[in-house]
Amino acid sequence: MLGIDPGLSRCGYCVLDAPGPQVRDRSARAVALGVIRTPTDAAVHLRLAELQHELRALLLEYRPTVLAVERVLFQVNVRTAMSVGQASGIAMAEAVHAGCDVVEYSPNEVKSAVAGWGGADKAQVQTMVQTLLGLPRPPHPPDAADAAALALCHVAMAPLRDAARRAGDRGASV
Amino acid sequence: MLGIDPGLSRCGYCVLDAPGPQVRDRSARAVALGVIRTPTDAAVHLRLAELQHELRALLLEYRPTVLAVERVLFQVNVRTAMSVGQASGIAMAEAVHAGCDVVEYSPNEVKSAVAGWGGADKAQVQTMVQTLLGLPRPPHPPDAADAAALALCHVAMAPLRDAARRAGDRGASV
Repeated sequence: MLGIDPGLSRCGYCVLDAPGPQVRDRSARAVALGVIRTPTDAAVHLRLAELQHELRALLLEYRPTVLAVERVLFQVNVRTAMSVGQASGIAMAEAVHAGCDVVEYSPNEVKSAVAGWGGADKAQVQTMVQTLLGLPRPPHPPDAADAAALALCHVAMAPLRDAARRAGDRGASV
Repeated sequence: MLGIDPGLSRCGYCVLDAPGPQVRDRSARAVALGVIRTPTDAAVHLRLAELQHELRALLLEYRPTVLAVERVLFQVNVRTAMSVGQASGIAMAEAVHAGCDVVEYSPNEVKSAVAGWGGADKAQVQTMVQTLLGLPRPPHPPDAADAAALALCHVAMAPLRDAARRAGDRGASV
C-alpha cells in the first residue's frame, strides 16, 4: 500500500509492505520512502505535471492496491489548501487510474493510530514511524514520515473499515 | 484555446476559436461550451478520476494549444479551496501532458477583460459572454459562462503577455 502526504514543494510517499493488521508488532516494512520535490522556481502547471509523472511512476513500479492520503479540511490557510488540493487531486485521480482503492484519514486519525494520541507533534510522529518501521533514523523530511504514518494508519484501520463495510453491505441487503 | 472554471461538482469549460486578439469585434466563436458534472453522492477520488477522464477527452478532441484557468487564492473558504485545487491541479497536469501552455487569470482580470470592470457580478459576466460570443441566450450554469470568460480574457490578454515575454527575453539576453 502507498501513503501520500500531498504537497507541491514536497510530496511525501511511503510504500509499505505489511503482512498483518498489527503495526505495533513492527512487521510492516517500508519498501520505498521519500519525497517528490518539484522546483519552486518553475511555473505551477509544470510542477504539477512533474508531480503527476513521478506519482504515476511510483504507482507503476510498486503497484499498490490502496492509496492512503491525508484529508485536510481545516487548520490551513487558503493558499496552502489550494496547493495541497492540487497535489492530492492528482494523486487520487492517478491512483484510481492505476486501479487503487483510495482512503482518506484526518491528521488526528493518523496521529492516534501511530503515536497513540491525536495531539502528537511532528517529532513524535517521526520517532514513532522510525520505531514501528525499524528504521536506523527518523525519516526526513517530515513529509516522508507523514506519508509513512498515513500508510501505518491504514494498516491499523483497514480491518475496522472492512468490518464496517461488510456490516453496511449486510444492512443494505436486508 | 480552452477555458476551464475548475470545480468538482461542476467544472465549466469553453473551447474557443478566436481568429484575432479582439474580443469586442465578436469574431470569437465557442466550439464547445458546457460543464462537466460528477455525481455528488460518489466518493471524491472516483469523482476526480471521472473529471480527469472527461478533461482528457476534451483535450484529445479539440487539441487546444492553451489552457486558461482561474487563479483562486482568496475570498473562498478552505473546503472550497481544497476542492477547486483538486480540480484545477488535474486540469493543469492533463493540459501539460497534452502539450498545452497553461495560463492563470485572477477573477478580477477576467471580469475586467470581459465586462469592463473587476467588480462585475455573475449575471453581468453571463450577459457579456452571451453578447461577445453571439449566443442565443446566456450560458448556463454560470460555471460555463465563467469558463468562456476565462477563454475570452486570454484572447484579449495574449498579445500583451506575448509582448511582455518578448521584452523579458530581450532583457535577459542583454
